[in-house]
Amino acid sequence: MKRAVYPGSFDPITNGHIDIIKRASKLFDELIVAVLVNPAKTPLFTVEERMELIKKSLNNIPNVKVDNFDGLLAHYVSKVKADVIVRGLRAVSDFETEFQMALMNKRLNPDVEIVFLMTSYEYSYLSSGVVKEVVRLGGNVSGLVPECVETKLLEKVGRR
Amino acid sequence: MKRAVYPGSFDPITNGHIDIIKRASKLFDELIVAVLVNPAKTPLFTVEERMELIKKSLNNIPNVKVDNFDGLLAHYVSKVKADVIVRGLRAVSDFETEFQMALMNKRLNPDVEIVFLMTSYEYSYLSSGVVKEVVRLGGNVSGLVPECVETKLLEKVGRR
Amino acid sequence: MKRAVYPGSFDPITNGHIDIIKRASKLFDELIVAVLVNPAKTPLFTVEERMELIKKSLNNIPNVKVDNFDGLLAHYVSKVKADVIVRGLRAVSDFETEFQMALMNKRLNPDVEIVFLMTSYEYSYLSSGVVKEVVRLGGNVSGLVPECVETKLLEKVGRR
Amino acid sequence: MKRAVYPGSFDPITNGHIDIIKRASKLFDELIVAVLVNPAKTPLFTVEERMELIKKSLNNIPNVKVDNFDGLLAHYVSKVKADVIVRGLRAVSDFETEFQMALMNKRLNPDVEIVFLMTSYEYSYLSSGVVKEVVRLGGNVSGLVPECVETKLLEKVGRR
Amino acid sequence: MKRAVYPGSFDPITNGHIDIIKRASKLFDELIVAVLVNPAKTPLFTVEERMELIKKSLNNIPNVKVDNFDGLLAHYVSKVKADVIVRGLRAVSDFETEFQMALMNKRLNPDVEIVFLMTSYEYSYLSSGVVKEVVRLGGNVSGLVPECVETKLLEKVGRR
Amino acid sequence: MKRAVYPGSFDPITNGHIDIIKRASKLFDELIVAVLVNPAKTPLFTVEERMELIKKSLNNIPNVKVDNFDGLLAHYVSKVKADVIVRGLRAVSDFETEFQMALMNKRLNPDVEIVFLMTSYEYSYLSSGVVKEVVRLGGNVSGLVPECVETKLLEKVGRR
Repeated sequence: MKRAVYPGSFDPITNGHIDIIKRASKLFDELIVAVLVNPAKTPLFTVEERMELIKKSLNNIPNVKVDNFDGLLAHYVSKVKADVIVRGLRAVSDFETEFQMALMNKRLNPDVEIVFLMTSYEYSYLSSGVVKEVVRLGGNVSGLVPECVETKLLEKVGRR
Repeated sequence: MKRAVYPGSFDPITNGHIDIIKRASKLFDELIVAVLVNPAKTPLFTVEERMELIKKSLNNIPNVKVDNFDGLLAHYVSKVKADVIVRGLRAVSDFETEFQMALMNKRLNPDVEIVFLMTSYEYSYLSSGVVKEVVRLGGNVSGLVPECVETKLLEKVGRR
Repeated sequence: MKRAVYPGSFDPITNGHIDIIKRASKLFDELIVAVLVNPAKTPLFTVEERMELIKKSLNNIPNVKVDNFDGLLAHYVSKVKADVIVRGLRAVSDFETEFQMALMNKRLNPDVEIVFLMTSYEYSYLSSGVVKEVVRLGGNVSGLVPECVETKLLEKVGRR
Repeated sequence: MKRAVYPGSFDPITNGHIDIIKRASKLFDELIVAVLVNPAKTPLFTVEERMELIKKSLNNIPNVKVDNFDGLLAHYVSKVKADVIVRGLRAVSDFETEFQMALMNKRLNPDVEIVFLMTSYEYSYLSSGVVKEVVRLGGNVSGLVPECVETKLLEKVGRR
Repeated sequence: MKRAVYPGSFDPITNGHIDIIKRASKLFDELIVAVLVNPAKTPLFTVEERMELIKKSLNNIPNVKVDNFDGLLAHYVSKVKADVIVRGLRAVSDFETEFQMALMNKRLNPDVEIVFLMTSYEYSYLSSGVVKEVVRLGGNVSGLVPECVETKLLEKVGRR
Repeated sequence: MKRAVYPGSFDPITNGHIDIIKRASKLFDELIVAVLVNPAKTPLFTVEERMELIKKSLNNIPNVKVDNFDGLLAHYVSKVKADVIVRGLRAVSDFETEFQMALMNKRLNPDVEIVFLMTSYEYSYLSSGVVKEVVRLGGNVSGLVPECVETKLLEKVGRR
């Protein structure tokens, strides 16, 4: 039995995240989508909202759970007895940050394996940050995020 | 049951490859190390020698098999009914080549997933090509390749 | 008739920007230098000051206009009926950001084309941010920005 | 009147090239697709075949001409009195090669401008080399090259 | 006599910095480790603490001095009559930032030479920022920083 | 006393190499420009010609010697009792190759230090290969190589 963790801020979840989740859920017996609670940042959505949007967007993939964590990813992974961390790679700039993150996590928890999936090319330019920016500036993000996320985004920025 | 393929030239296998094989063998139920037969290149070792060196180096990891293939990786993966292709990433330059390879393989075989592992940092500068070059120029590669590979390399370049 | 937009913060304009403007003005019938008004940032110069400095620096190139915009670039480009967005590329790190920006703008406005010019090598290390930093720390920026910009920069940081 | 040159080996033309040609033909009054004759390389297709395939693939875009050249691109551009060189950028590795090419061409011909278009993301992994490799190994390239190119490719590698 | 400056924030010093200092101290007759006082940032440690931790960590390497500076590095280097600036390179992203910094410093002070050392691979993922983040989140950083730094870090974040 | 080696093919020496040599000669007491004899490659110039052109181009810098070597750089550096290897960095693609080279040399000879200088930006696009290509295609390389090299290049390609 292989249990994997897909960690992230998911503020909010995008179609790029969903693509990685669906693909990773086929590779491992269980996948935990783990929302990072980072007290140093002020997200647009609360942890509860972010978890709710992930659940709605995924439509009950049987072996996918949604959870949240604070503190070190390496500790969280030990706590939930996961074997694998899943990460998406979009571009060269991702690569270096992820490489450093991977090496540090290996040091903090040598038993965990970190596995990278390449983001599908149609989502290679997509990030939660870009989506929020486009919505704030009045642009249309349908096709980039699930419908429930789009609705909530428009509410948050006061456009609906 | 998840079956993975780790393709490569392995001309010859290095400690960097072995690190990836050991880690990948823990992630999937079965791992096939698949030696690419490329008629357009003239390798130092024959396919048989390369397969033999891989087997000797791995010391019977129960769920790892050694095989060879020619033609398209996407076709081979279908033939052996594998779910996953495993690749090691060492550096930014790897990243782009691998990204293109991954996108093309996805197109040729949409059912297969490609999974990347980061090479351990102590092997980040290691490649079969560098090892052969160092041996040819009279340098010492112990610690970079298994002992059986070092012995064969010295025979091939006529230094033993 | 081809109308192009060269968008940016221009806080303040540098000799690198001027190089791109001069070259782009020869490629297209009309070029609009469009100053981005970003309420989320606190620029050193007001929009009016930035536009004024651009106009002074350009010395009346006949087919270049200076304008400002807020909101999405893709919307602004539609509004002014431009065919092309012009961007300068300095380095690999620019490349990825620009690639993502280009893909998103294509999605928001499929009719617009984005054209990149390579920054001349003598300006490859130049940015508005670096210029402001050097002035703040007491360094000399003549040769990096037009004289009128240098004067205004020294006023702003209280050194003249 | 702006005349542009889009140089390349086009051995053979791919859908990625065609995307760049169509987009560039809207930006400039005249576009010359210029096939490089490089005596140091042995292409799969002769210059005549390559030009023929380009013409067939383009279906008579009125302002696009097909030509060939040997020697320095900077000299060819002068000879045909072009104002602009057009290049496609796919990835970071392209970027550096292109940057060096651009700087050298500027030195050899300071009057010419070099303009870069980002390859559409669905063609970001596509190159003539990859297409030839896939065909040689028995893979399917429909959707990656025009039909007339696919037919010729299969003839050349003896599969039809 | 060659005098070199190794500038940085050192907030706090890591084993990666110490590796560069030891190696640079063998290359030049005198090495000044120069702590940057940047009024625009709020460091975790005061300048005095940072200098103290550097001194304790280095154990009296005879030709290494510890100093601090504000303002432009190019001016500081002139003031202390140094011939060389030493910088460590960890990764591609470092490379571009450092390249721009180097070109600007050359412009501000053409007499100074900037010399780069590659960070040893075991420290390639290490930075003061990562170390502080790990400590804040409750992780173990022994082996990444000197013991005296680890103790101080735990005090600062209220864990001891 | 610090002795440095600047290794390379120098086929032929360019103004970019000369810039690095002049700067490195000021940093170290003695600098050996070491021409690599690589039997696997067929250079345009013989070792003797390459050494001759280097000597002519340098105009007797007192502390610079010209030598040649075959085999491993790490062994040559031991033989001549050098403390430092000097390398020039032009771009990101150089960076990764050089990083791997540096790590391997450190492994083969832990006592040697490798020091990198950034190529001056006006030579960032310059390489021996590009220079030879331009001359072959009939282009002008004055300003990119010393006059004696230009003359020899034109002789070699039969243009004078």
